[in-house]
Amino acid sequence: MSTMGKIATDDQLEHAGIERLYGFCKSVLISVGADEPTAAAATDAMLHGSRLGVDSHGVRLLPHYVQAFAGGRLNCRPKMRLARQIGVVANLDADHAHGARAAYHAMDHAVEIAQSHGLAAVSIRNSSHFGPAGAYALHAARQGLIGLAFCNSDSFVRLHDGASRFHGTNPIAMCVPAKGQKPWLLDMATSSITYNRIQLHRSLNAPLAENVASTETGMDTTDPDLATMLAPLGGIFGFKGAGLAGMVEIFSAVLSGSRLSHEILPMGGPDFSTPRNVGAFVMAMRPDAFLEQEEFDAAMHRYIEGLRSSPVRDGAKLFAPGDREWAEEAYREEHGVPIDPATEKAFRRLAAEYELPLPFQTEVME
Amino acid sequence: MSTMGKIATDDQLEHAGIERLYGFCKSVLISVGADEPTAAAATDAMLHGSRLGVDSHGVRLLPHYVQAFAGGRLNCRPKMRLARQIGVVANLDADHAHGARAAYHAMDHAVEIAQSHGLAAVSIRNSSHFGPAGAYALHAARQGLIGLAFCNSDSFVRLHDGASRFHGTNPIAMCVPAKGQKPWLLDMATSSITYNRIQLHRSLNAPLAENVASTETGMDTTDPDLATMLAPLGGIFGFKGAGLAGMVEIFSAVLSGSRLSHEILPMGGPDFSTPRNVGAFVMAMRPDAFLEQEEFDAAMHRYIEGLRSSPVRDGAKLFAPGDREWAEEAYREEHGVPIDPATEKAFRRLAAEYELPLPFQTEVME
Repeated sequence: MSTMGKIATDDQLEHAGIERLYGFCKSVLISVGADEPTAAAATDAMLHGSRLGVDSHGVRLLPHYVQAFAGGRLNCRPKMRLARQIGVVANLDADHAHGARAAYHAMDHAVEIAQSHGLAAVSIRNSSHFGPAGAYALHAARQGLIGLAFCNSDSFVRLHDGASRFHGTNPIAMCVPAKGQKPWLLDMATSSITYNRIQLHRSLNAPLAENVASTETGMDTTDPDLATMLAPLGGIFGFKGAGLAGMVEIFSAVLSGSRLSHEILPMGGPDFSTPRNVGAFVMAMRPDAFLEQEEFDAAMHRYIEGLRSSPVRDGAKLFAPGDREWAEEAYREEHGVPIDPATEKAFRRLAAEYELPLPFQTEVME
Repeated sequence: MSTMGKIATDDQLEHAGIERLYGFCKSVLISVGADEPTAAAATDAMLHGSRLGVDSHGVRLLPHYVQAFAGGRLNCRPKMRLARQIGVVANLDADHAHGARAAYHAMDHAVEIAQSHGLAAVSIRNSSHFGPAGAYALHAARQGLIGLAFCNSDSFVRLHDGASRFHGTNPIAMCVPAKGQKPWLLDMATSSITYNRIQLHRSLNAPLAENVASTETGMDTTDPDLATMLAPLGGIFGFKGAGLAGMVEIFSAVLSGSRLSHEILPMGGPDFSTPRNVGAFVMAMRPDAFLEQEEFDAAMHRYIEGLRSSPVRDGAKLFAPGDREWAEEAYREEHGVPIDPATEKAFRRLAAEYELPLPFQTEVME
């Protein structure tokens, strides 16, 4: 079940219980100087990734965030403010906050406005990497609303027929409450794969899938050592993936007054002192503004059950968006979160530096 | 340039000038009994398709719509009403209107609310096939707003690992004003290809692309004669295309109280008397509710120009979403709209039945 199992078997890895992991990440961020709401928001976002098996956006980001706070790229004590508020629309100036701090705050505002007006949207400027987009969509759904979240990033993805990185992996996230069960949760990059995947295949010396990555001249390659950029979702229909990335770019960067993906400084540095002005966009909508709550609940149930019971091809099993993640969450709540070796090493360094207890299960004396 | 060129060379086909074509389609719909706003809306939508080269959603639909009005599936004189209006959100009961009548009306309402509140959305129930989703997104952009439009349809597309038609081709359309030039216009099915494309390849006896269509057991095939359903966008990453189709389904069907795609009667009949309860969803947003109009215009310009001037791979040319369509529109405004043989035949039948002059350029005596 664990997605980490593809890299190493779970029993070779250190594991950390959810609660201790939360406490460790938050304490590290407080230690590096982040204020309480910033440390809480960044930790909530990382734990969303680590609970649901989205490890690329989980606690492996902790040492990266520490470096960005310490370097000054991220503001430890942001004074966020609404730069604009017209009707049900707002633009949040995040004052170079951690992206999770900005996005949870923006979604809280959108939910509040949507509660009284049915629908609201907030674009976010002067923000930074916000981790898993699904976390903010889920934040709305936990309050009974439909949530949508988008962001851009430094560029990794070529255009259709392009030969240069142009868009970020520009995710689309949407979360829809489903009465009596876990919500419907879509959280997808508009490229086929993430750049992490290329790096993983390099280390495994394994070929990539067809039409997902390209050489520096834009020609598709399955050789991870030749791949320097990602292809947009869709293969030979990549104009669709690129168009969707454009939709996300317009929401997140154009409508917020942020940098376009190809103008953003690289997440990986070497500059960790200059703010990056990444953009984001969140939206909340009340289902019962459109129709009776009971009618909505019944339709959503009919949709999800229809999907899960639809005929499958040989040997397959159907999942609604989020089903795999909720199953992974249940597994990890019981067995703990597997920590990859590089993150384990970073945790040991941070624990020593800030004199904090390690969160690993093997460290717990019972 | 003409997309019809793939089927037959333009000079083998009858052509019709835009204005005469508009007059012909509208007169036919009036003749079959549609009220004036219905005939105008349905014709506007078809001409959107035929002007921009989206011929699958152009005037070839005229005989189909005539059959649906005559049979009673479509209401010639709908009494549409807002079934619900809370804040900036509404649900339109379209009274089985032509889908274009309902969608233009819903977008007009969304634009009006968004003008004062920045953002608005309308879901549509008891509607029908609305043709090209981009027409309604463009309708908002012509008024300076960002428009989004979605709809479901009878099912053509399997789920990822599915072996049955489940979603419709569930399009995503977004149109964004761009100062001093044609708007950015994305209008895409969430499958790789449309079902029309399978039928075209059958008649041409030409293989399909990989991973775009499947046999009745859900196995992918390039043989158009074995293909009975479409695959979701993304190939082996088809869970993303299926997730996007789900987003569209939730907006269009769940939030409107309409039938789910797999519950909708087939567009092609044989039943042309029972209303189909197709759903749709439109949204309008004012850019200047998020930031200063000048800042928005400058960012949109920077985005589009950055895209068009981005490096290309060997021999390619980059297009922003809509660029091909605007070029096709300019060509057709000068040279007329090519009419495929089946549609030409239907036009001759309808012209004789309703005693109307044919719109073909060869019929014009000068």
